[in-house]
Amino acid sequence: MPTDLNQIALSNRRKVLDALRISGRMARVELAETTGLSPATVTAVTAELLNEGFVEACAGEGDGAARRGRPKVDLRLRPDAARVAGVKISLHRISVTITNFAGELLGASEISVRANHQPPERIAQMVDEALETALRAQEMSRNALHGVGIGLPGFVDGETGVSHWSPVFGEGAYDVAALFSKQLQLPCFVDNDANLATVAEHWFGRGKGRGDMLAVTIEHGVGMGMVIGGRLYRGAHGIGAEFGHTKIRPGGALCRCGQRGCIEAYLADYAILREVSTFRRTADPFDPLAVHAALAEIQAEGMAGDPRIRAIYARAGEILGIGLANLINIFGPELLVVSGAGSSAAPLFEPAMREALAANTLSAAVDRTPVEITQSSDALWAHGAAALVLTRSAFGSA
Amino acid sequence: MPTDLNQIALSNRRKVLDALRISGRMARVELAETTGLSPATVTAVTAELLNEGFVEACAGEGDGAARRGRPKVDLRLRPDAARVAGVKISLHRISVTITNFAGELLGASEISVRANHQPPERIAQMVDEALETALRAQEMSRNALHGVGIGLPGFVDGETGVSHWSPVFGEGAYDVAALFSKQLQLPCFVDNDANLATVAEHWFGRGKGRGDMLAVTIEHGVGMGMVIGGRLYRGAHGIGAEFGHTKIRPGGALCRCGQRGCIEAYLADYAILREVSTFRRTADPFDPLAVHAALAEIQAEGMAGDPRIRAIYARAGEILGIGLANLINIFGPELLVVSGAGSSAAPLFEPAMREALAANTLSAAVDRTPVEITQSSDALWAHGAAALVLTRSAFGSA
Repeated sequence: MPTDLNQIALSNRRKVLDALRISGRMARVELAETTGLSPATVTAVTAELLNEGFVEACAGEGDGAARRGRPKVDLRLRPDAARVAGVKISLHRISVTITNFAGELLGASEISVRANHQPPERIAQMVDEALETALRAQEMSRNALHGVGIGLPGFVDGETGVSHWSPVFGEGAYDVAALFSKQLQLPCFVDNDANLATVAEHWFGRGKGRGDMLAVTIEHGVGMGMVIGGRLYRGAHGIGAEFGHTKIRPGGALCRCGQRGCIEAYLADYAILREVSTFRRTADPFDPLAVHAALAEIQAEGMAGDPRIRAIYARAGEILGIGLANLINIFGPELLVVSGAGSSAAPLFEPAMREALAANTLSAAVDRTPVEITQSSDALWAHGAAALVLTRSAFGSA
Repeated sequence: MPTDLNQIALSNRRKVLDALRISGRMARVELAETTGLSPATVTAVTAELLNEGFVEACAGEGDGAARRGRPKVDLRLRPDAARVAGVKISLHRISVTITNFAGELLGASEISVRANHQPPERIAQMVDEALETALRAQEMSRNALHGVGIGLPGFVDGETGVSHWSPVFGEGAYDVAALFSKQLQLPCFVDNDANLATVAEHWFGRGKGRGDMLAVTIEHGVGMGMVIGGRLYRGAHGIGAEFGHTKIRPGGALCRCGQRGCIEAYLADYAILREVSTFRRTADPFDPLAVHAALAEIQAEGMAGDPRIRAIYARAGEILGIGLANLINIFGPELLVVSGAGSSAAPLFEPAMREALAANTLSAAVDRTPVEITQSSDALWAHGAAALVLTRSAFGSA
């Protein structure tokens, strides 16, 4: 019983903090409407947060002329109440951001790595180094951080922090959250990197204020995140949104997952590189830094007019467009964002993508969901990782 | 302001009623935990519901020996507090159920119709007749009903009650909820029929107590409904879950929607009939009663061993299995149910479906989501339509 009541109290705290973080500022009565909590509960929770210094009062905004009687008081987060870090682990790069309690970016830094098929302990050390670099740039001590959010490619259970498979570690399940918490000496929250890209787009990017949105990410793999009813949706088992492994061409191109015809097998970095390797020597596909450099070169040649490269990207765009149409037919989201390093090739794949999208979306749905390609930086994803800490932690005992 | 507060009060009433309907009975403290409402709010809302006669108190269940002090009091819905009707409109049949306030089935009846491409006014008259038949069988007057839930195939916006396209009406958008409310002289709620099948499975069928489940329906079309976080999810625009029009074979079989390669174009009644018509004369595809009879015959011949029919269903099963694998990869649901009249052909399509499902689901997800084929009756769907009324209406002013 005490545990249950405590959990309700924590959940109420999170609801109030999230509402303030998304809206910027709100009066208590608006907080009650937005969170669905009773006015009495909102008064109690906000009194506690004010007392602890996480929230501060400010003069109300808005319709001054129309208002009579007591001046309206808004509440907002106190930006300096806490600081958190966000980390994005890619195969060739580790990016770190530091944000304040309001989710505002204080600084970002990155280090180059070769992070494929490494023991988790080695990756934890790399993250430790990257975090230390970021802290030094901010002249901050590690003790000033409340926690670290970490985005990882692969099948990562965001609820438990366990990685079931990741190109970073190779085969095997690891309790990454526990391992990283020990190495960094800070509470760590781990999630699939596409989920964090989705949180970043929902909080800070194109999806701000949307209730239902999808984000598809193109990097070394093809990922996806879903916001449903304003919250990140992870599926019943913590691992969902494996859009990259939905099949568009059964029996088609071979995927790294061992199956055939997955979207990823046409669109991911390794798939593009494999196609190009048919007619000329390219980078070692297991050297992530070399892959990164080779793809930049391939895209430049495609944009300069190489017809073989243009045809490869046109086919990838067609497959992507059909896959996105399937998502729109199923979800009918308010917005669909395509992001990730691979979106830098948009000039090469976008025309075929738009054509396939229009040809395969139901006519009743075709104009309702805008599809936007955005070239988000790794820093934006790391910013999403920091946001994860802000939503997962209730900051202080309740 | 009064409107907003009133909406919060209505929403709190619905939360309490839904929790009692799903659980059967609950103490106030459990209601607070389940709904997330404060104990004070639960006390206020249940006092009102007790006073109005929608809820009644009963002796608490459970750990008598371990309990000390005041005996525990549970609350439950008063089954006789209200009655509602549910209607499923198929092209060849209209099914009606009457349920009490607890969602318990009191009676079901059906009439045969030819309901394709009819003016909405004509359909409303047919539903009126079917409802009258059901009421007579129960010796009930129409005044005893609080409302009617109606399931309709096609692109139906469950929020607004507008049908944007339905095989029942043909082309054109109609405010079906308003039209039916006028004809039946009762509040009517209209939704996509697959959504109501999903509600039925979630409340009364295989999905009872599941937080995340999907239901795929095979009838004259292929539909889908999603329960996410315990609630029916309709997408941002009210029309979602068009699984039947996701593409598995781009450029493949022609679909009634005008596009190619949709799942429906391999699996729906019309698709099976079209294949069979290649080698022999079958029913007029625009006569729904004849289609219904012809399909029963075709399935019987397939089960008796006709290799051409078996091959048609095996291909349909393969396409279905790939489509279901895509859904599992994206959603990772707790349960996936396949239902609808078309599931009577399961002995013909299930082996190929299971094989394709196993071959195309991610290995990390393959054993997590049970896929169950159920031969639900039209009455179960109509039961779901009645449940819709129970969830949509707050019963009495708040």
